[in-house]
Amino acid sequence: MADVIGFIGLGHMGRAMAGNLLKAGYRLHVYNRTPEKAAPLVAQGATLMSHPSDTAERGGIVLTMLSDDHAVESAVFGETGILERLGPGGIHLSMSTVSPATARRLAEHHSRYQTVYVAAPVFGRPEAAAAKKLWISLSGPHAAKDRVKPILGALGQGVFDFGEEPGAANVVKLAGNFLLASAIEALAEALTLAEKNGVDRMKLASMLSQTLFACPAYQTYGEAIAQERYQPAGFLMSLGLKDITLVLQTAAASAMPMPLASLLHDRFLSAVAQGGAELDWAAVASDVARSAGLSRKKDD
Amino acid sequence: MADVIGFIGLGHMGRAMAGNLLKAGYRLHVYNRTPEKAAPLVAQGATLMSHPSDTAERGGIVLTMLSDDHAVESAVFGETGILERLGPGGIHLSMSTVSPATARRLAEHHSRYQTVYVAAPVFGRPEAAAAKKLWISLSGPHAAKDRVKPILGALGQGVFDFGEEPGAANVVKLAGNFLLASAIEALAEALTLAEKNGVDRMKLASMLSQTLFACPAYQTYGEAIAQERYQPAGFLMSLGLKDITLVLQTAAASAMPMPLASLLHDRFLSAVAQGGAELDWAAVASDVARSAGLSRKKDD
Amino acid sequence: MADVIGFIGLGHMGRAMAGNLLKAGYRLHVYNRTPEKAAPLVAQGATLMSHPSDTAERGGIVLTMLSDDHAVESAVFGETGILERLGPGGIHLSMSTVSPATARRLAEHHSRYQTVYVAAPVFGRPEAAAAKKLWISLSGPHAAKDRVKPILGALGQGVFDFGEEPGAANVVKLAGNFLLASAIEALAEALTLAEKNGVDRMKLASMLSQTLFACPAYQTYGEAIAQERYQPAGFLMSLGLKDITLVLQTAAASAMPMPLASLLHDRFLSAVAQGGAELDWAAVASDVARSAGLSRKKDD
Amino acid sequence: MADVIGFIGLGHMGRAMAGNLLKAGYRLHVYNRTPEKAAPLVAQGATLMSHPSDTAERGGIVLTMLSDDHAVESAVFGETGILERLGPGGIHLSMSTVSPATARRLAEHHSRYQTVYVAAPVFGRPEAAAAKKLWISLSGPHAAKDRVKPILGALGQGVFDFGEEPGAANVVKLAGNFLLASAIEALAEALTLAEKNGVDRMKLASMLSQTLFACPAYQTYGEAIAQERYQPAGFLMSLGLKDITLVLQTAAASAMPMPLASLLHDRFLSAVAQGGAELDWAAVASDVARSAGLSRKKDD
Repeated sequence: MADVIGFIGLGHMGRAMAGNLLKAGYRLHVYNRTPEKAAPLVAQGATLMSHPSDTAERGGIVLTMLSDDHAVESAVFGETGILERLGPGGIHLSMSTVSPATARRLAEHHSRYQTVYVAAPVFGRPEAAAAKKLWISLSGPHAAKDRVKPILGALGQGVFDFGEEPGAANVVKLAGNFLLASAIEALAEALTLAEKNGVDRMKLASMLSQTLFACPAYQTYGEAIAQERYQPAGFLMSLGLKDITLVLQTAAASAMPMPLASLLHDRFLSAVAQGGAELDWAAVASDVARSAGLSRKKDD
Repeated sequence: MADVIGFIGLGHMGRAMAGNLLKAGYRLHVYNRTPEKAAPLVAQGATLMSHPSDTAERGGIVLTMLSDDHAVESAVFGETGILERLGPGGIHLSMSTVSPATARRLAEHHSRYQTVYVAAPVFGRPEAAAAKKLWISLSGPHAAKDRVKPILGALGQGVFDFGEEPGAANVVKLAGNFLLASAIEALAEALTLAEKNGVDRMKLASMLSQTLFACPAYQTYGEAIAQERYQPAGFLMSLGLKDITLVLQTAAASAMPMPLASLLHDRFLSAVAQGGAELDWAAVASDVARSAGLSRKKDD
Repeated sequence: MADVIGFIGLGHMGRAMAGNLLKAGYRLHVYNRTPEKAAPLVAQGATLMSHPSDTAERGGIVLTMLSDDHAVESAVFGETGILERLGPGGIHLSMSTVSPATARRLAEHHSRYQTVYVAAPVFGRPEAAAAKKLWISLSGPHAAKDRVKPILGALGQGVFDFGEEPGAANVVKLAGNFLLASAIEALAEALTLAEKNGVDRMKLASMLSQTLFACPAYQTYGEAIAQERYQPAGFLMSLGLKDITLVLQTAAASAMPMPLASLLHDRFLSAVAQGGAELDWAAVASDVARSAGLSRKKDD
Repeated sequence: MADVIGFIGLGHMGRAMAGNLLKAGYRLHVYNRTPEKAAPLVAQGATLMSHPSDTAERGGIVLTMLSDDHAVESAVFGETGILERLGPGGIHLSMSTVSPATARRLAEHHSRYQTVYVAAPVFGRPEAAAAKKLWISLSGPHAAKDRVKPILGALGQGVFDFGEEPGAANVVKLAGNFLLASAIEALAEALTLAEKNGVDRMKLASMLSQTLFACPAYQTYGEAIAQERYQPAGFLMSLGLKDITLVLQTAAASAMPMPLASLLHDRFLSAVAQGGAELDWAAVASDVARSAGLSRKKDD
């Protein structure tokens, strides 16, 4: 009989991932703060639990896919957190984006209960999650990583192992999001320069994404920015700001300047200050256009 | 019998390109300030001329592949420049990176002599030029573009047409180089953050270039920066600085700020000030490392 | 008979300030984590206490002059903190630099105990404190401010009232330190530009501080930076980094970009990464010189 | 009988300065591209000339106060320029802001004609010029400087000698303007941070300009920015942009990054792109406010 896995966090990403685990034959004990979101999964056979702790079985595996560091810490340490119930030999498979510092702190606390923290943050939007096309960055103790690999195999198209240090996989995740945000800023400045000089934005984006930058990041964001299409949001501006803040905090904690990350932080703040928090993070390009004196018709 | 083409500028790029034209059956009248560099081409059948003007035939085509705006202007307007000799119906096919402003000025002067300026700057390093793998950005009058297309077909793997405005193709070229430099800075900051946090630089670069950034720019520069290999230079730091300077001048002339380009300009200046002018432009990553307090062994 | 005041925090600033209160006739109950530092004040008549709480009298005034937000919170909320002992009508006169957010939180907690939080951070180095030359920024409830004004009069040369909001005086203090750090960066870049162009650094600093910038900030830092004299530290680089971090956190919490503060944050991180944490914060100028390719003799 | 001085350039600054020279007893031969502006000076005794060259006497002194490098070069080298007429022993006293590179080039050309170039750019707005309150930065050959000192004494309140190198005085002038622009940006960010946190802008500006920053630069700009009063312009945004461009060009020519100057350059471009070219340069503060999401009533 298949293993039972605890699954906490059923947002856009979590629901898609949990669905794939059910299809792969896993049994799931799911929990979400808003229980209604669990309905489609329950219809597929998942069992809905009342508390995070209920999802854990002694020595088992609990996967978390939550919105921020605080939510993960609550699910672990809170009154109804998983920590005690999971017990010796248990694994917390933490797949959302948290800071390396939080990951290290969680790993340390887990070790006091003889449970193991495995960091496995993912790259990909909800569509990628649904299509099992996530890329997964992994770090933690060897034996635990071996045990969760079949689960990760049911969720993504590739797993990259960054060793045993619990924060490592999250450093990788932050580095990746920083690179994406950098590409967005660069595309926004380049396409605005083109427009100010009479060159078609869409033609330029199209050329770039067929040649030097023929890869998903530039194809996705090149087209969105060229067309100024920022809704519906694939990744919220407010979450982009949160991630860049984590990047800068991680850099500061390791005593290094990251001037490009600072520039992005200022750009996100400017976009949020002007009302863009609920748009896709590529909408920072609107602030680039504004500072170039380009005004847009409201109904464009 | 095949057309004769004038070809001015036989540096690393020019020699590779001229070689491909000879292989494609074109006859070439070549000129280079240092005539010795023409030897291998002469051995393949090219005719070496003493002055730029000698390469031009009335109503013919002259291709320039020179190091900067000034060199192109000399080859056109100078005492022995091509302008008068080329005459009505002649085409100046300008393939090196010049500023859009210079392109516009050249086009205007040409029109007084009823010759035509066609801008066709290229993306690619000398190896790509030799392998006919250049990407070409094109702008200028329709009829002239049609006439040069077979030539461009013998030089690259794809041509992207940006309309009739003479500066347009150069705006595209500058935008592309700006995006490359941005990717270099982003990779340098990300890999340094990784190193400061105990994550293997090479592993991170490898993951990125297989996933979100599976494209030539990130593959080439990710590996070079992860390994800190900046010699031999594929593209000189000093030329990178020149191009970013052109980007900023073009942006200023069209009244727009480009804060990321400004950051890159400062980074290149810092790298040059510390002795890096002759390294590959990816060596800006050394300045990122230095500012993070990472010192390297001299013989690395 | 004179009032008794509790005084917590006897670093360079605190000792100088406490000495002035004794001279002005106040009786002091002092506390410091390292009690030895209290010796000169005890010799002048102060009474050394064993715990922060011991310095408080019911309905009295306790002044704190501590190194960071955490130290202030400990002195108030900690097991031996002042909060309960101070009781209804008591005043916490908080004179060190804390974040506006911390000030607001402290004010709220105090109000539950019917004690009052008055923010009165100061501008000035230890010499200025000793000479009663501090400038004081003040905010808090009217009645409490009236009650502490004689104390402030014994400590500084001027008090500026910014209303009742508890965080206001700290916003002013952070704004002032941000302006000082900005002046340091600007002077460093200007004097380096001068040196690179053969203009005498000292002559330029001297001219500026007699003309457009004839004020203490530019006189002090212009001379220090022109002469590259960064020891002994008047204000530590590590504290400068802390304050700019507070500035950026305050700006982010109010949704605004501060690109100049971001630039300073990166500069301080670079200086600290290269070993400058224990120098005066004006030593960021060394990083400006380094990035300009200027190297200095070690024994300069 | 008093010396005759040639005086070229009768804008706001030039007219005020020429007036003071007449009052001091000098005879003036004046020239302005728009001759009408000379009327008040002619009424005071000046002689209006038809060409720049007419203002020069063999071995005499010609003072220029023109809007940019190009205008100065025309007045010297142009068809009716002063160069030949001035002849051996003549002095060109150049008092407007030009780049150090232009100054060096002018000095070299002059030397071929045995005339001498003396650089004496000034700090101060038209009111200061009228009140003989200019500060003057001076460089050039000793003998020539001695000869012009009485003239400078009639124009300003202080002269600072930076040696013989012709570009030195202009480096000083650019450094001074860079420091002013830096103070404007710093004040704008600080006052916006204050406003976003409920602190009165005017009160903060007032405190700063009485304490740490009790000097003309902060008093003038602190009040203007706190009140958002940017008209009439004391110094045009477009001229500020020109000067920061010269600063960056001078820095680039001496291989050094100036990140704060880059930030200012982007800020000025943004302000100009949004229609601020004709406002006072302190109006960059409006762009700071906008990026913080603060919108202003149109009729403010």
